[in-house]
Amino acid sequence: MNPTLEIFSQGEEIVTGQTVDTNAAWLSERAVNMGFTVTRHTAVGDKLNDLIALLREISVRADCCICTGGLGPTCDDLTAEAVAKAFALPLEFDEIAFAQIKQFFTIRNRGMPASNRKQALLPKGAERIDNAWGTAPGFSLQVERCWFAFIPGVPNEMRHLFLESVQPSLASRFSLRPDRLIILRTLGIGESAIQERISAIEIPVSVQLGFRASPDDVQTKLLFPHDYPEVALIGLVDKIVAELGSSIFAIDGLGRASGDLVFTIDQLMIAAKHTLAVVETASQGLLAAKCLGKDWLLETRYEQSLERLAKKLAVTVNTDDLSATAQAVASEIHQTGATDFVLVQLYSGDKQTFHDKDQAIILYNVLLTGDGCYQTTHSVAGPIERKQNQAALLALDLLRRYLQHKEF
Amino acid sequence: MNPTLEIFSQGEEIVTGQTVDTNAAWLSERAVNMGFTVTRHTAVGDKLNDLIALLREISVRADCCICTGGLGPTCDDLTAEAVAKAFALPLEFDEIAFAQIKQFFTIRNRGMPASNRKQALLPKGAERIDNAWGTAPGFSLQVERCWFAFIPGVPNEMRHLFLESVQPSLASRFSLRPDRLIILRTLGIGESAIQERISAIEIPVSVQLGFRASPDDVQTKLLFPHDYPEVALIGLVDKIVAELGSSIFAIDGLGRASGDLVFTIDQLMIAAKHTLAVVETASQGLLAAKCLGKDWLLETRYEQSLERLAKKLAVTVNTDDLSATAQAVASEIHQTGATDFVLVQLYSGDKQTFHDKDQAIILYNVLLTGDGCYQTTHSVAGPIERKQNQAALLALDLLRRYLQHKEF
Repeated sequence: MNPTLEIFSQGEEIVTGQTVDTNAAWLSERAVNMGFTVTRHTAVGDKLNDLIALLREISVRADCCICTGGLGPTCDDLTAEAVAKAFALPLEFDEIAFAQIKQFFTIRNRGMPASNRKQALLPKGAERIDNAWGTAPGFSLQVERCWFAFIPGVPNEMRHLFLESVQPSLASRFSLRPDRLIILRTLGIGESAIQERISAIEIPVSVQLGFRASPDDVQTKLLFPHDYPEVALIGLVDKIVAELGSSIFAIDGLGRASGDLVFTIDQLMIAAKHTLAVVETASQGLLAAKCLGKDWLLETRYEQSLERLAKKLAVTVNTDDLSATAQAVASEIHQTGATDFVLVQLYSGDKQTFHDKDQAIILYNVLLTGDGCYQTTHSVAGPIERKQNQAALLALDLLRRYLQHKEF
Repeated sequence: MNPTLEIFSQGEEIVTGQTVDTNAAWLSERAVNMGFTVTRHTAVGDKLNDLIALLREISVRADCCICTGGLGPTCDDLTAEAVAKAFALPLEFDEIAFAQIKQFFTIRNRGMPASNRKQALLPKGAERIDNAWGTAPGFSLQVERCWFAFIPGVPNEMRHLFLESVQPSLASRFSLRPDRLIILRTLGIGESAIQERISAIEIPVSVQLGFRASPDDVQTKLLFPHDYPEVALIGLVDKIVAELGSSIFAIDGLGRASGDLVFTIDQLMIAAKHTLAVVETASQGLLAAKCLGKDWLLETRYEQSLERLAKKLAVTVNTDDLSATAQAVASEIHQTGATDFVLVQLYSGDKQTFHDKDQAIILYNVLLTGDGCYQTTHSVAGPIERKQNQAALLALDLLRRYLQHKEF
């Protein structure tokens, strides 16, 4: 039997529906991957009695509980007080926590408001979890059956504290035998198309096959028992790779560094020391934003109208052949921009088509490189935010395919 | 006292983190607006004993509970069975429900799988909730203190059944008097600084004051009882507005249309028919991406290095006065770009400073308009994603302050 784990989210904004609790799903996925059985998620508001009741319930019901939220400096942040009352543990002033909180403000050249002092009060016996990303230190403690970890609810802080502090503690405290999860990440091919392509491959009954479509990729997931033979595992993954080919941009779980599309591109661009300039239209800045802090991206521009762009660059627009127009734009930018590659994204479809979720735009991506011009064309429908995101991903994916395979 | 309401979500995909439970937030927001106090969200997987235990808990704890999921035709859909076992109510075959399920398939020219028959089994005494959007009928019943409504977890079906059936039932069963929530949204001032600034204002005990810091704004929230006098309400809000001044970009709950920062700017730009060109550095495309599909944003560009940008525009860089440099950049772009306004964002701090969460960059924003140049300077620390987001927001906020107040 795997140890059981519960997720406990605190915050009036969650129970009143102003915030969707994405922390619970994020934490659960990682806990399941570690080998826990997640049995419950519970969210309560900023009410002391509700918090106390819930803490007591969980303390005798679960082996472990990750709690988010309620660690801030204001009067509605009640977690430490609730823990103290629920388990009759006095609050004690933690000098080191206080020094860290003061330093947080010092670094930012801001005075520390008096209210932040309360964040240094921790229940007796609790172990502090240092927070280098915000003012709220977390803490952990064992009560009855349950090991509790309390971390901030701000997603960025929560993720850092979980990965860097809570996860290692869990791994050393519990005897876990996680199943092995392999994820093949693809772009440009749908869930049901993947299912059809791999339907001839025999999947052993002990292996769980699943699919998941997210905004940024489509994932084919294989869950192997912890004692599944390595050779057989690699053999099965290889068969699927053979069917899906260059649509796969990364594989998680085989021990190699892997991540999202930008991570993959970043590794390849750094290794080859290439530089890039980009023209965005439908993605409207999102492509650049996704490549935050990457040294190889030297410049990008967004133009609302192709006519304005063409006029500035003295390029002729051929509305019957936007790929040719994109090539002309790329050449022009290549001459003035001094980058190795130029990636240009144009699309056909008027304003109404772009805004209407039931209509599709046609995307024309062109990549100009030292050894020629490469291009892809895609049709994308859905809400405007989906069109923006797909436009950014599909342009980047042309670059990725060039770098990985020179295959399109 | 408002009646209390809990949300109960069933599904293995929720507790394992494969699906973010957006239903809970959607339902809660509507319940709060109707006048319920939402006290808890709970999610459990497809395990009969967990479901039974939770149903019994809630039946004596809450006045009302909306349950989603577990009404499908497969073996892991256990809600009706769990209700039957939890409250010793035999399952009864509902002829009308069965006729509706059969009709669902007939309309679609598909044969009904045998497994769908079980969806017509409802606990004795339950009232059927017809489902015209799928095969799973919902049902409601009173047990102990609690009135339960069980509806499907598929978001589209859930929303239809709630709005068309559950919400009217709630309105007739409960005597509801909704509280009134006012939210003041600010930028450029922290939670604790707000608390200090308004500390001298006397908040009546019947009014609940709360704060919430999100990546995109800091919210000061006031929850008034339903019968709070309008004049006193406006008076209190005005006092807070006087303290926080032009940091407030929007107020929710006063009957005016309001939303996030881009929504506010969009209204003002459309009303005044202005157009804008932008130079991004630290925000790296995110400012443009946030303004997706807005007609007034004609062009944006991102340059990784100020030297490249200055060379292209033939502008001299003055590293001791980046505001002056930004003004020169704005003038140059204004001459070639043909927009009413030019917004230029520069920052000081090298690559390492930008990436290091413990170091701050200094942002220099300049807005060139028909009646002059306006500027702001901010220090921003934190992870690179925070710097990017704050850079986008603070540049946009300079534009907002100009449009709303001409105050900086």
